[in-house]
Amino acid sequence: MSDAAFALDPRLKNDTRHVASLDLCDVLLMNDARFPWLVLVPRQSGMVELCDLSAAHQTLLWQEVTRASQALRSLDAFDKLNLGALGNIVRQLHVHVVGRREGDAAWPGPVWGSGAATPYDEETITSRLQMLRTALK
Amino acid sequence: MSDAAFALDPRLKNDTRHVASLDLCDVLLMNDARFPWLVLVPRQSGMVELCDLSAAHQTLLWQEVTRASQALRSLDAFDKLNLGALGNIVRQLHVHVVGRREGDAAWPGPVWGSGAATPYDEETITSRLQMLRTALK
Repeated sequence: MSDAAFALDPRLKNDTRHVASLDLCDVLLMNDARFPWLVLVPRQSGMVELCDLSAAHQTLLWQEVTRASQALRSLDAFDKLNLGALGNIVRQLHVHVVGRREGDAAWPGPVWGSGAATPYDEETITSRLQMLRTALK
Repeated sequence: MSDAAFALDPRLKNDTRHVASLDLCDVLLMNDARFPWLVLVPRQSGMVELCDLSAAHQTLLWQEVTRASQALRSLDAFDKLNLGALGNIVRQLHVHVVGRREGDAAWPGPVWGSGAATPYDEETITSRLQMLRTALK
C-alpha cells in the first residue's frame, strides 16, 4: 500500500532508523536513547493532516499505531504511552509513539522540543532494531 | 454509549468547559484563549491508554476526533492541527485537538506545558461554545 511518489522527509530520515514497513506505514526508531520512541509514517505522498488520509487508511493507521505500541512495550517497561501527531516542524504526516517513564528526561512534559537527542551507540541500536522487528511480526 | 461509573477527572473539569456529548466522547473546550483547543474524553471508566478501549471504540474515537477537528477549523483559521494523547499528568484517557498558528504562544513547540493558560472572558467563551455546538451537529 505504497504511493510511488512517496519519499520520506529528509529530517525524519536523518533523526531515525528504519524498523519495518507495515501495510500502510513505515515504522522508524527515533535515534534518541533517552526515550523508547517510534515514528509511524504512512507511505502516501502529500499527506499533512490525519484527515488527508482516507477513512480506511485512518483506521489502518491507528491499528498500526497500536501494533507499534505493543512492540515498544514488549521491549521496555514504561509508565505511560504518549501519542502525538504535531507536524509543526516536519509537515509530512507522521505519528509519534513514545514510552514515558516517571522521572525521564522530559517528565512530565512532552518529549517534543525537550533538549537534544542522545544517539544510541551502534551496537545498542542494532539490537533494538532487531528486537522491534521480531516484536512487530 | 456511557459507562455508569464514568466521572470526568476533576482537573480536566476545572480546565475546560463542556461543549457536547458525542456517541463515545465528551467534547470539552480548553479555557485557554491562546489556542483553539478541544479535548475529547471517552465516557468509559478506567481507561488510561488508547488500547484500553475496544477496537470498535478506538475507531469511533478517531472518527469523533476528525469531527471535532473539522468543527474547530470551521471557527478559526490555523496552519496545523496538533493531536496528542499524553496523560502524564491526568491519567484518564483524553485526546487533545489543537489548532496551531505560526507564531502562536508556543510555536513551533507543543502546547503542553507551555506557560499558563489565558482564560477566555465569559462572553467570548459562551459564543465559542455555541458556535462549536452548531458546528458539531
